[in-house]
Amino acid sequence: MQSKAKIIETIRRHKRFLISSHINPEGDSLGSALALRGLLVKLGKKVEVVWDGPVPPAYRFLPGTSVIKRKPSFSYDTAFIVDCPTLSRIGRTQQFIDKRKPLCAIDHHISNERFGTVNWVDPEAAAVGEMVYFLFKMFKVKPDRNDATNLYASIVGDTGSFRYSNTTPKIHRVAAELIALGVSPAVISNALYESTSLHSRRLLALALGTLKVDRGGKMAWIKVTQKMFSKCQATSQDSEGFVDYPRSLKGVQAAVLLREEEGGGVKVSFRSKSGFDVNRIARRFGGGGHRAASGCFIRETLPKAEAMVLQEIRKALRENAERSVRYTPHR
Amino acid sequence: MQSKAKIIETIRRHKRFLISSHINPEGDSLGSALALRGLLVKLGKKVEVVWDGPVPPAYRFLPGTSVIKRKPSFSYDTAFIVDCPTLSRIGRTQQFIDKRKPLCAIDHHISNERFGTVNWVDPEAAAVGEMVYFLFKMFKVKPDRNDATNLYASIVGDTGSFRYSNTTPKIHRVAAELIALGVSPAVISNALYESTSLHSRRLLALALGTLKVDRGGKMAWIKVTQKMFSKCQATSQDSEGFVDYPRSLKGVQAAVLLREEEGGGVKVSFRSKSGFDVNRIARRFGGGGHRAASGCFIRETLPKAEAMVLQEIRKALRENAERSVRYTPHR
Repeated sequence: MQSKAKIIETIRRHKRFLISSHINPEGDSLGSALALRGLLVKLGKKVEVVWDGPVPPAYRFLPGTSVIKRKPSFSYDTAFIVDCPTLSRIGRTQQFIDKRKPLCAIDHHISNERFGTVNWVDPEAAAVGEMVYFLFKMFKVKPDRNDATNLYASIVGDTGSFRYSNTTPKIHRVAAELIALGVSPAVISNALYESTSLHSRRLLALALGTLKVDRGGKMAWIKVTQKMFSKCQATSQDSEGFVDYPRSLKGVQAAVLLREEEGGGVKVSFRSKSGFDVNRIARRFGGGGHRAASGCFIRETLPKAEAMVLQEIRKALRENAERSVRYTPHR
Repeated sequence: MQSKAKIIETIRRHKRFLISSHINPEGDSLGSALALRGLLVKLGKKVEVVWDGPVPPAYRFLPGTSVIKRKPSFSYDTAFIVDCPTLSRIGRTQQFIDKRKPLCAIDHHISNERFGTVNWVDPEAAAVGEMVYFLFKMFKVKPDRNDATNLYASIVGDTGSFRYSNTTPKIHRVAAELIALGVSPAVISNALYESTSLHSRRLLALALGTLKVDRGGKMAWIKVTQKMFSKCQATSQDSEGFVDYPRSLKGVQAAVLLREEEGGGVKVSFRSKSGFDVNRIARRFGGGGHRAASGCFIRETLPKAEAMVLQEIRKALRENAERSVRYTPHR
């Protein structure tokens, strides 16, 4: 049986569900988890969304975020983990996962580790929201406006508002159907893109001051230190999206944000353009994600982590350059 | 006969076409003009796109921009003016318009002055590109990849990459069809949004350092000085879009960018959210625009211009607050 058929079967046969996703949630994880909850509730199931950590302020407009719990209040039959390549990324929610019960992963990360008893992984899906929308169709349940808003936000989040290369004809058709169901794209983009905090803008000013490029403009990176955070009274959420600044430079293939973490170590975000594979880089440091967007955590000081990451990217860029020379006979 | 039927009839009956649009072109004007050219050429017509002023660098990736002329090289039968509410906005191209010949306006501005002999004005259309795509369908001509790219860019431009309130189910369906015709959304967004210069990013870092808010966060402003420009080796084009940074703060109603000009004086850009009317403010200083986006030039020093502008905005915010108290009886 196909994995998505197994997911449908599992939903049909069970009654009590737990849904979770990765720590530091964003549009796709929250939107797809909350939309899945909407579907299951409409199917008469008992459902709880459990998350390690609070919902970031920017996403609190999503319908249903107020019912997200830190721990489950009942014993579930089946757990769903969405948009999560490894189980460890659900953080402290792991303690509530009962290994004797079905664990269903619904994900589109190519790096998904198939940690579930059922694993529906579709790297062709632009967002997990696209996969959850498919489930609505399979069960012939019409998403209400709240479900549609969560699904649309998940798509907007993971396609960069229909800008990334994962923007397919299909995802536009899904977006069209969701607007017809009552979604207001302007309300969602206002909440996601036009509700920045002053702290975040001040932090951006300092972070942009560290912007550097190398390899003839092919790589660019910025840094955020704990000192900057405290100077701007900013939190780690305020640096959300900063990696887009090195990424948006003309000619950049690999962009990096290095963020010094409060408890030590460095969170590294990678983005690429023109097909450079940052997933490969992130995996070298025990992280992962997609070709064009990945991340990892390095338990080192900021200067050390910076040197390690830059070295790997330089190496990959050099290898790519050599390969393209080798395979272009008419150059 | 309906105006769009008249447009179709006009295309059928004529052979030699001139196409133009407004000065300071952007995605929709360029994309729809070039796509219309693509359609007419495929119908065996002789066509020229004539424009007053050069194509801005950010749009030179659009297929066909290299054939845009400053003056026509042959005598046309019919002129098409796209995305242009008044004829005067085509600038010096007006001199080539022969008043004895058919003049067709294709536009979606509600304020269109119906200056043509045929006026197809559809304020429901998110972009003029949507209307030109309709013409392709009417003539049963399949847009090639270049046409589709121009149409997609026109839509991306006028919907703010599917973020504005004009983002309809229909426009998403059109976008889906265009991608199926070979458009690469990533290539378009890369050209439009991800080709920033390093100078511009460095300038942004300095400008963001001046970010201030007042009136409980309802107004926000940033400044760019000549000193900053020279420090970053940046030009005035590098500060394009900076006003979106104060604008995107949560709760901001009025956002301002004050830019010290090389020859003296200050260029002021205004943006608003939540219905605040910045056009009224800009007009006080001899400028103007729309309610949500306006500008003016003040022949004063930066500190003086700043004080003048902020005073006017504070006054308007105070008046709005008083008015809303007065008209809210149950407060």
